[in-house]
Amino acid sequence: MTTALPRTLTSALPTHAGRTVRLQGFLHARRDLGGLQFLVLRDRAGLVQCVGSGLDLPLPESSIEVVGRVTAHPKAPGGYEVQVESFRVLTPATEPPPVEIPKMEWHVHPETMLDYRVVTVRGLRERAILKVQAELVAAFRDHLRGEGFTEISTPKIVSAGAEGGANLFPIDYFGHPAYLAQSPQLYKQIMVGVFERVFEVAPVYRAEEHATSRHLNEYLSLDVELGFIESEEDVMDVETRVLAAIMERLREHAAPELALLGATLPEVPAHIPRITLLDARRLVEEKYGHPVGGKDLDPEAERLLSQHYAETEGTDFVFVTKYPRAARPFYAYPEEGGLTRGFDLLFRGIEITSGGQRIHEYPMLQESIAAYRLNPEALAGYAEVFKYGMPPHGGFAIGAERLTARLLGIGNVRFARAFPRDRHRLTP
Amino acid sequence: MTTALPRTLTSALPTHAGRTVRLQGFLHARRDLGGLQFLVLRDRAGLVQCVGSGLDLPLPESSIEVVGRVTAHPKAPGGYEVQVESFRVLTPATEPPPVEIPKMEWHVHPETMLDYRVVTVRGLRERAILKVQAELVAAFRDHLRGEGFTEISTPKIVSAGAEGGANLFPIDYFGHPAYLAQSPQLYKQIMVGVFERVFEVAPVYRAEEHATSRHLNEYLSLDVELGFIESEEDVMDVETRVLAAIMERLREHAAPELALLGATLPEVPAHIPRITLLDARRLVEEKYGHPVGGKDLDPEAERLLSQHYAETEGTDFVFVTKYPRAARPFYAYPEEGGLTRGFDLLFRGIEITSGGQRIHEYPMLQESIAAYRLNPEALAGYAEVFKYGMPPHGGFAIGAERLTARLLGIGNVRFARAFPRDRHRLTP
Repeated sequence: MTTALPRTLTSALPTHAGRTVRLQGFLHARRDLGGLQFLVLRDRAGLVQCVGSGLDLPLPESSIEVVGRVTAHPKAPGGYEVQVESFRVLTPATEPPPVEIPKMEWHVHPETMLDYRVVTVRGLRERAILKVQAELVAAFRDHLRGEGFTEISTPKIVSAGAEGGANLFPIDYFGHPAYLAQSPQLYKQIMVGVFERVFEVAPVYRAEEHATSRHLNEYLSLDVELGFIESEEDVMDVETRVLAAIMERLREHAAPELALLGATLPEVPAHIPRITLLDARRLVEEKYGHPVGGKDLDPEAERLLSQHYAETEGTDFVFVTKYPRAARPFYAYPEEGGLTRGFDLLFRGIEITSGGQRIHEYPMLQESIAAYRLNPEALAGYAEVFKYGMPPHGGFAIGAERLTARLLGIGNVRFARAFPRDRHRLTP
Repeated sequence: MTTALPRTLTSALPTHAGRTVRLQGFLHARRDLGGLQFLVLRDRAGLVQCVGSGLDLPLPESSIEVVGRVTAHPKAPGGYEVQVESFRVLTPATEPPPVEIPKMEWHVHPETMLDYRVVTVRGLRERAILKVQAELVAAFRDHLRGEGFTEISTPKIVSAGAEGGANLFPIDYFGHPAYLAQSPQLYKQIMVGVFERVFEVAPVYRAEEHATSRHLNEYLSLDVELGFIESEEDVMDVETRVLAAIMERLREHAAPELALLGATLPEVPAHIPRITLLDARRLVEEKYGHPVGGKDLDPEAERLLSQHYAETEGTDFVFVTKYPRAARPFYAYPEEGGLTRGFDLLFRGIEITSGGQRIHEYPMLQESIAAYRLNPEALAGYAEVFKYGMPPHGGFAIGAERLTARLLGIGNVRFARAFPRDRHRLTP
């Protein structure tokens, strides 16, 4: 109401040099220097230093409005400065923030940072991480729409788990037992019968008790499923193109955030190397002397295998294929020798995706349910759609936070989510 | 593997006239006519009639592949027909579908339709509804990104309800009580402090016991929140532009689906009429003799008010503004006379949105919590962010299914969701 001047964003200052603008944002930082006052205003587009005198400055993080003249100033961050003509507090902060928002490193315990997340999330690093994730998700969707995929929205309240019964959060649904969905697996398969090619971006839930730097109990799953495939190779091809589209978009739309975070984007090769799990274990053992037991790669083996492909083929990505049935759910398409058409994608030493071809024939599904010693009654609802000519199909899921963290070099996946949920954290 | 011919979609047939193509899809319908066999293949792009003889046809809904020659045929649906040269069953259906998928009307009980949703959702009407919704959601996101909004993902597992404590689904979170989020209200407000302008597309949960044609217990909420506003008028302006962008995109990208459903899109005026709740009640009483008690409009009053604006201004939309505090949550920005800066949007006689300006100052929020006789301890987490200079802000939420249903003339909102959840339905 102070002035009819429209609001200008800090990113538009270069086109307003020499003119008076109206800025709005947060009081990011302030300092007094012998009568002159320097304040940094932060808006959604960036930062600008403003210079004035005799201003009654509020606490940091207050919402403010500055009207002033834009001057080129080579030494100021961004190359422009604003000479304050009038200053107004829109909303005063009533307490100083628990950490200094402008600092790029806070020497506080990570739990403390999360305790104060409602305000620490305003930090430049924190917001850059979430901005990158928003662009990543947008690229995922836009690319898939371009390949003829349709977005779906499926239930997160389910009557049983898609992967068996473990790690489910129970819900009281009007007195009936229900659970939070671990994945949209069944529903995305059903929707292949409708749209052939579908994707969903939605939260999923894993009631895993263990706390690691790579697990969240609630995370954003980027899910894809497509029909009329020849094999899981088609699924890996789609994922490769999706990843390439994500990197391209981040280069175009998130360059300032990547620079601020010191992150280097990977090149996505036209063909990501593919190695069977069996060969991968052999390679890691023979080349690095790391024996791999169990039915999967252990974290050290994942790291070494990625190292091998970085050294020999110059890529940060590798598909590990043909997982054994023992390491995959009942719906994985079986192959000779107890294997499946399931794959994982490793990126910079960590698994960011599971995918594969699924069983599409009703008799084979029934056999698999029996072979896994699962209860056919409990899975009758799942099996139902397979009576109706489901085409050969497969898909994959990417954990948005895990991919974000790995792209940006963030050690703990919890900082790739605005308000993470873990074993001990339900707030904020 | 049968042939190196790439797959052709039914939508591309006009450009392949006279040539041999490979089609894949579902056996939508079949009939024998004196030696000639007519089959309709359905893929994600549409339908095509194929003609052959001596084929061993499987049950409807089987996944099939047809290789054949495309011929122009004015009487065939779509204007082209395919002369079958070879035919292959990819996956046979093992049972006939419980309803005839090609029929545009099924004379079965709605609950039966939902019981068999895994296959009824393949019906042309059902899939058109969900396709329109996918485009609607895409338009919502794309428009907001163009206006500088950032997409967020916020927790659906919460420690308390944003609107008080009613209608929450309880979760057992590692032995601690928790709930499914009724709305991202608090979190989108927090994120205004980070990105200024945010949106989220995610499921929300209402444990409402009553079953009506306009309520779902799980629905897809299109949420918007923006800072540095002057009043709720700015919020209504954004919503008006979002709705215009949705209609524009549906006209461009969903014309076949709209035609199939017989739906007519509304024109969104540059300025949607705005009337205060008080004036709206007076108008409905004086013009239509319908007295309105209570603190809100009843469904009949909503219908009559919409009728008035359709008759006098030729629009299907009207904002009802200045709701009383008694009808709004504690975070609604208060005005003189016990009113708030809250509004609803009516579309064709039904409320599709609630929105408004929110309280942004910490002292005012504390007063409001007291005035609503809420427990300040329970809301301390919510209040926390308001210590840090939250700018004047507001937002709105659109229920994706309700808007879809109203646009398409679908009487029951459950058929605007792939797998609805209601009081009695947890499956499929």
